[in-house]
Amino acid sequence: MSAAPTQPATVVTPETLLEHWQGHRRLTRRVIEAFPEDQLFTFSLGGMRPFGVMALEVLSTGAPTVRGLVTGEWISLTDRDPLPKAELLRRWDEATAEIDALWPQLTPAHFQQEYIAYGMYPGTGFNHLAYVIDNEIHHRGQGYVYLRALGIEPPVFYDRS
Amino acid sequence: MSAAPTQPATVVTPETLLEHWQGHRRLTRRVIEAFPEDQLFTFSLGGMRPFGVMALEVLSTGAPTVRGLVTGEWISLTDRDPLPKAELLRRWDEATAEIDALWPQLTPAHFQQEYIAYGMYPGTGFNHLAYVIDNEIHHRGQGYVYLRALGIEPPVFYDRS
Repeated sequence: MSAAPTQPATVVTPETLLEHWQGHRRLTRRVIEAFPEDQLFTFSLGGMRPFGVMALEVLSTGAPTVRGLVTGEWISLTDRDPLPKAELLRRWDEATAEIDALWPQLTPAHFQQEYIAYGMYPGTGFNHLAYVIDNEIHHRGQGYVYLRALGIEPPVFYDRS
Repeated sequence: MSAAPTQPATVVTPETLLEHWQGHRRLTRRVIEAFPEDQLFTFSLGGMRPFGVMALEVLSTGAPTVRGLVTGEWISLTDRDPLPKAELLRRWDEATAEIDALWPQLTPAHFQQEYIAYGMYPGTGFNHLAYVIDNEIHHRGQGYVYLRALGIEPPVFYDRS
């Protein structure tokens, strides 16, 4: 029970939202790492996509959404072909750096303005970023089931270090 | 590209965060509904908990966390016993109403102050609420895999109506 608010109307600052997201992204990276190389783009349950394909979808909506908000250019990544785990992790780290680099260009107005993301999806900047983060958590939760079904203990959910 | 911000430093207003969460809660309610009565507390994959037990965990951290922030009383629900689906949905709706009723009592300071939630977990009010929402999305994603494995089409992820 401390820390008087510096900006009374602020639920969360841009800096805290970035740290929250990057914490999730660190956890998702550990889930990718936990998959055996030969299961990442092959194993599935219930006819769903392999986790590697879900991770490529998450990559396609992360940095590109921040770039869209900042630059007005919405370029979706459609590549879902299997990759070596090391290459997927390399792209993950590249996106991490791009998000960190672009984030300071987001002004408070970016979070509240309306955008048609990727020419199709209406919503505020906050809506779009929340969707991206939520979609990552959703698919990562599915990755946890895959790992458990493979007999592998997933990374601890609450550890975002 | 419209709507000038009314509070320039605000990434998201308390009202928008509530609507975002209740949208997720409506989707999770549909996932509960989609389970066959006889699978809700029995079906599992990879040795994980049945979805009904996960839903009870989510209930135990939702309204009680808002209540903790508002009143300072952190009372965790530990009941994880199987319930009829109708009773689980009744408790879900009760929590929905309680969250709506308590939420207007959250001031901006509540989101930024530090709390030891449930006497154990340190973090700001925003951290605690984000954890609760993220944990719900995480387990619901697992429920999607269970439904698919049962041959049932899950509710559409992006529909929060």
